Amino acid sequence: MPTIGFIGFGEAGSAIARGLIESGLGPITAYDIAYEKSGLVQSRAAELDVELLPGPAHLAATADVIFSAVVCTEALVAVRSLLPFLGPQHWLLDINSVSPGTKATAADLARERGAHYVDVAVMSNVSSDLARLPLLGAGPDADSLPGLLAGATLNYEVVSPSPGDAARIKMYRSLFVKGLEALALEAMMGSYAGGMHNRVLESLDVTFAKYSFSELVQQLIARHAVHGRRRADELEEVAQTLSEVGVDPIMAEAGFARMSWDIERGLQDRFDHSEDPDWLAVLAELESLRHRGTVDDE
Amino acid sequence: MPTIGFIGFGEAGSAIARGLIESGLGPITAYDIAYEKSGLVQSRAAELDVELLPGPAHLAATADVIFSAVVCTEALVAVRSLLPFLGPQHWLLDINSVSPGTKATAADLARERGAHYVDVAVMSNVSSDLARLPLLGAGPDADSLPGLLAGATLNYEVVSPSPGDAARIKMYRSLFVKGLEALALEAMMGSYAGGMHNRVLESLDVTFAKYSFSELVQQLIARHAVHGRRRADELEEVAQTLSEVGVDPIMAEAGFARMSWDIERGLQDRFDHSEDPDWLAVLAELESLRHRGTVDDE
Repeated sequence: MPTIGFIGFGEAGSAIARGLIESGLGPITAYDIAYEKSGLVQSRAAELDVELLPGPAHLAATADVIFSAVVCTEALVAVRSLLPFLGPQHWLLDINSVSPGTKATAADLARERGAHYVDVAVMSNVSSDLARLPLLGAGPDADSLPGLLAGATLNYEVVSPSPGDAARIKMYRSLFVKGLEALALEAMMGSYAGGMHNRVLESLDVTFAKYSFSELVQQLIARHAVHGRRRADELEEVAQTLSEVGVDPIMAEAGFARMSWDIERGLQDRFDHSEDPDWLAVLAELESLRHRGTVDDE
Repeated sequence: MPTIGFIGFGEAGSAIARGLIESGLGPITAYDIAYEKSGLVQSRAAELDVELLPGPAHLAATADVIFSAVVCTEALVAVRSLLPFLGPQHWLLDINSVSPGTKATAADLARERGAHYVDVAVMSNVSSDLARLPLLGAGPDADSLPGLLAGATLNYEVVSPSPGDAARIKMYRSLFVKGLEALALEAMMGSYAGGMHNRVLESLDVTFAKYSFSELVQQLIARHAVHGRRRADELEEVAQTLSEVGVDPIMAEAGFARMSWDIERGLQDRFDHSEDPDWLAVLAELESLRHRGTVDDE
């Protein structure tokens, strides 16, 4: 059974470590840059009986399979700190939420040391219930991950032999989740002062309960193609509303700009007066506008 | 029974006219600036046996209760065109999706002519099924609306005696709906080229099916308070991902900026290491940061 380690032992790393330990795997070691000063890191490690190590050399010496689970701005820093100590016996499982380009760079760095690398994307809030934690994998050795963690029941799917392709899917998911978070902040900051926040959410509960999320997205894109101008203009009214109560309308203005991009390039002319266009036809037209735009701009 | 008219006979106006006619109300007249050239306006009117009039004077002469249902950029233009012909017998029901300030201005203009004005907010996609179409009303005469449309079963609630207060709730709702539309455009433009759009949506279907929309918003705001920095940084990775495929990351960058606003003002320090803070405590803190910000900026 391969030995398992973590570089980065925050919320994500410790949750997955817990899941592995509950599946009978271990012992597990970890190195976290805050290992000396973070009481949270120390208490998580103590609770799970995970040995906290004083540096990446110690981690590479005690673990063959190393999860990288640091904050996303430190993903490459973490890999670089491990590099001198990696060899062909090592597997780097990179679960960081970073761009495909960053993952491809990390994969190249690991490969230069002869180490294996898997781009792993966590497709939900992280949890120790591994059987329910959806993971996507990408990379030439992505198929080997379940064998490395034999004993744990995983919800894991390989999407591509190219590292970065799992990250790519995760990033577009994140745009929805974190973008909605930003919309929520702006709308709730605006409505809270007037005590309207619950009325706003109740109204959305009624609408959103009618559809699955993908149905909603498909409808919004189809309606955008026909009524984009009007819908964008409404965001200008929203921006006005926010400004009136002193909230900077960052998301409202961005939404107006995002919608205006395709309206100005004629998307709506293409679908004018269509009843319920197919959303995939709209996406194909957006793709074509994008390439036309590139040529025109040159 | 009062006579009913519409200024603006597009998708929204004609749907509500249909609902009123199906409830036995009418005859109905309408004036639409495109009445001479829009085949769609003409066919909608013909289908419903609504008389299309050649100007606002004719509309005010034939109808006491006038719905205003124009494109939002023309809301005040429409009111102003009617003004000279309005008197105390008139009721202006303003269902346009415009800011509270615009509605308050429209209300003032109508009042100067002695006419009644109700700020009406349509809280879903417009539909002719009036019993299921959620409407909010605001204004000193908002209580009178059901009597004016007696015979129609309405889903109508008065929220305030101040015109603009119904619009305000609608605008925050619209920020979510149209903001999500903008997020969808950006995420789907990025993922469509690589054929990943369905995988992204499937993953979100799983997550979003677990919660009502308001639960989701409450969770996102609570998690933002504790992990805002990390979540904002992930949007920078998303922006990088979009840039790599040539899509301008308008929403991703705006989301980063929106989240950074409160992080830079110390929201996360206030909730650091909290487990599941109450979302209302987070909103109260955001409100306090907002007022502190105003004072500091002066």
